[in-house]
Amino acid sequence: MSKLTHLNQRGEANMVDVTEKGITDRSALAESSIGMSAEAFALLSEGAHKKGDVLSVARIAGIQAAKKTSDLIPLCHPLALTKVALEFELQPEKHSVHITAFCRLAGRTGVEMEALTAASVAALTIYDMCKAVDPAMEIGPTRLLQKTGGKHGHWRGDVSATT
Amino acid sequence: MSKLTHLNQRGEANMVDVTEKGITDRSALAESSIGMSAEAFALLSEGAHKKGDVLSVARIAGIQAAKKTSDLIPLCHPLALTKVALEFELQPEKHSVHITAFCRLAGRTGVEMEALTAASVAALTIYDMCKAVDPAMEIGPTRLLQKTGGKHGHWRGDVSATT
Amino acid sequence: MSKLTHLNQRGEANMVDVTEKGITDRSALAESSIGMSAEAFALLSEGAHKKGDVLSVARIAGIQAAKKTSDLIPLCHPLALTKVALEFELQPEKHSVHITAFCRLAGRTGVEMEALTAASVAALTIYDMCKAVDPAMEIGPTRLLQKTGGKHGHWRGDVSATT
Amino acid sequence: MSKLTHLNQRGEANMVDVTEKGITDRSALAESSIGMSAEAFALLSEGAHKKGDVLSVARIAGIQAAKKTSDLIPLCHPLALTKVALEFELQPEKHSVHITAFCRLAGRTGVEMEALTAASVAALTIYDMCKAVDPAMEIGPTRLLQKTGGKHGHWRGDVSATT
Amino acid sequence: MSKLTHLNQRGEANMVDVTEKGITDRSALAESSIGMSAEAFALLSEGAHKKGDVLSVARIAGIQAAKKTSDLIPLCHPLALTKVALEFELQPEKHSVHITAFCRLAGRTGVEMEALTAASVAALTIYDMCKAVDPAMEIGPTRLLQKTGGKHGHWRGDVSATT
Amino acid sequence: MSKLTHLNQRGEANMVDVTEKGITDRSALAESSIGMSAEAFALLSEGAHKKGDVLSVARIAGIQAAKKTSDLIPLCHPLALTKVALEFELQPEKHSVHITAFCRLAGRTGVEMEALTAASVAALTIYDMCKAVDPAMEIGPTRLLQKTGGKHGHWRGDVSATT
Repeated sequence: MSKLTHLNQRGEANMVDVTEKGITDRSALAESSIGMSAEAFALLSEGAHKKGDVLSVARIAGIQAAKKTSDLIPLCHPLALTKVALEFELQPEKHSVHITAFCRLAGRTGVEMEALTAASVAALTIYDMCKAVDPAMEIGPTRLLQKTGGKHGHWRGDVSATT
Repeated sequence: MSKLTHLNQRGEANMVDVTEKGITDRSALAESSIGMSAEAFALLSEGAHKKGDVLSVARIAGIQAAKKTSDLIPLCHPLALTKVALEFELQPEKHSVHITAFCRLAGRTGVEMEALTAASVAALTIYDMCKAVDPAMEIGPTRLLQKTGGKHGHWRGDVSATT
Repeated sequence: MSKLTHLNQRGEANMVDVTEKGITDRSALAESSIGMSAEAFALLSEGAHKKGDVLSVARIAGIQAAKKTSDLIPLCHPLALTKVALEFELQPEKHSVHITAFCRLAGRTGVEMEALTAASVAALTIYDMCKAVDPAMEIGPTRLLQKTGGKHGHWRGDVSATT
Repeated sequence: MSKLTHLNQRGEANMVDVTEKGITDRSALAESSIGMSAEAFALLSEGAHKKGDVLSVARIAGIQAAKKTSDLIPLCHPLALTKVALEFELQPEKHSVHITAFCRLAGRTGVEMEALTAASVAALTIYDMCKAVDPAMEIGPTRLLQKTGGKHGHWRGDVSATT
Repeated sequence: MSKLTHLNQRGEANMVDVTEKGITDRSALAESSIGMSAEAFALLSEGAHKKGDVLSVARIAGIQAAKKTSDLIPLCHPLALTKVALEFELQPEKHSVHITAFCRLAGRTGVEMEALTAASVAALTIYDMCKAVDPAMEIGPTRLLQKTGGKHGHWRGDVSATT
Repeated sequence: MSKLTHLNQRGEANMVDVTEKGITDRSALAESSIGMSAEAFALLSEGAHKKGDVLSVARIAGIQAAKKTSDLIPLCHPLALTKVALEFELQPEKHSVHITAFCRLAGRTGVEMEALTAASVAALTIYDMCKAVDPAMEIGPTRLLQKTGGKHGHWRGDVSATT
């Protein structure tokens, strides 16, 4: 399939019909990153070693955002996610936090957008909590690493460039 | 000020008290980008020349997301935004769409998170509408370009690397 | 002013900038109606004479909807409404319920959309609660009756055709 | 069945129990209209011929509203819609836009409210974007045209009066 | 099972994976109470005998809150509830309102949180509507009375202390 | 003032008009508690000594809920809270967690409901995360401890019974 599936022949946006797709086990894994100054990274890391609240807050924000995906992305179908998990890895050499988000569902449509949204909002939450120290932080690249289930089966991104 | 302002002395997350901050005119400008395959870019560009629905949908999604920022980012204050605008620039040489989001408010706290959230969700929406053609699209860098208003006045990022 | 204010010169949608508008006392009054079969009207009226739950539920739905207006109507500004009230009038001769919704705000922009949204969602709620008896009910006309405040001051619709 | 199904014997509102209803393919088609002045209609039509953003924004607003139906209509069940589509027809002779909204679901309960909500919010969005030119626009009639699936099977409204 | 299921081995919060749990019929019954002064109770009871709007509003608020549970409780799964009902009992001897909330679902996970959230928000709504008369009202105990379905089958609380 | 302010003379619910109230500095402090078995309390305390995620999640849930108050409590006005903070105290002798929630606002109406909602949802979140160990946990009493600002000035509850 090689078309912009959300546009009809007149180029109008509509939510794709998935009524007759089968209910299968689907998952998606996405990543994002946020790079920051040495000072911001030191403060965040220190917190992570104590109470870890920056990353705890970002984890909750990401989980909640995954559940709001169909409210944020206009043509996404509402889904009853059965699993959401986020992982954070501190990368001291790059002063960055690497984020992975995993979503799973027994449903009619994939969960790529949910995983990408979770990773994005977790990164934005880290930005929010550290911006007083460093407003120049950069988020990205945000991308899909892997998906399973559905008509097209397994897909894995070329992650050679990833840490 | 050089601390993670959302954490108290015990490292616990709380929403910063802005009750006594003055109401001033504040704005923020953020950017994001989404890079894609030549095929996806061609399809998106074609649509843009006709009805432009991919970018129209992304624009609306970004505007709506700016209004939901305090629901997405746990420690953000609810704000009554007075202006949200998004611009999209097609970059044929890079097969990417460059996104800028501008927010404005007469209020007690800045609108950086609103602009960054708008740009991020616009990029995710483009991903959603083009993912059937190219699931390997990459979003970023997402970052703040400029902010005005508030105690610290004007801030401008070093954007030498942009575009 | 005689332009579609939400579109810029390229025809792109954006949220109008109201940052520099003054904070004034604004109000709006809107109406809607829902017409139904004699049987549905009799059941609804009977309930209204006892516990009145159909109209109680519709009233709450309308109030809640007024508060969600900026989440529903993409280019509406978020507003902190200071008053919402709905009234229902049973019109036995027409088998219809006439709905008026009033909203008020000290703010930078008008509350027409909030009043119209409240009236519309109250009508939809009545439809929902009576649809098992009569799925052919009709909602409308939904329109603005009056607005006060703002640059254009008082506006009053030509309501000769009403009731 | 000829009762107000959302009220129990004491007249109290509750959400109907659909746990044991079968999962069937259900759909609903609803319509609304918005009539306006010649000037407003000309401006909207002109835009529609160029970038069409008024109708693009209204389409997205309608789709998003369909997904929010159970949040707006108190006794509606939350549903995972599998299809939402809106169509707009310009009616130059009447200076009006005719809106149809179609929803589909494999589920335990009908999607009439989703289709009616989508059509209503699309009409409100057109009102919002054109109100600076003509605040006297009128929305309606909003009604169900057709539904399929469920215990009662196919239902079709008497649409002789339409268009 | 005897662990805090929402924390992984590193103590990090994540949404439990229920993808492979079976879809079974589940229900939960929860209670709350709100005690108040004789004056507040008299006013509320009087209203209940007439139009009953305090309890009507609280009932709707509880139903709506049940549907928002996964948006409120960070690690709750989104669920498509098939039944929500609230009951209120006036307890004149204690100047209190006793609230029970019942939720039902054919799904992969229990609905305890939905029932507890419905009862809690109904109590908060009564507080809101009576607080001008008595700000010292007390809510609680809020607890689960019973649940059915799922791996652990039927559970019934020790309600000896309840009225 | 000694009336149920949200009901008009016909006993109908409406949102009180606060348009002409002054903007003053208002605050509210509320409390709740959740009591549990020795086993659940030991597991929660242990977690609190390590990463503390149960209480971190509950804190975020409470803050987010405060911002959603007007969406949950039908007649609450939407407010732009300027401060939300939650504190948790482990009470080993009672196997309970004591919760206090503080909200602040420069606005036209009080923030009692926001503080009570924050405390309630924090307690519900602790219940959710510990329910696999002890479904019999009890929440309450939930009550207002103190409020400042507004026409009635300072109010302080009789907290003699509190720990």
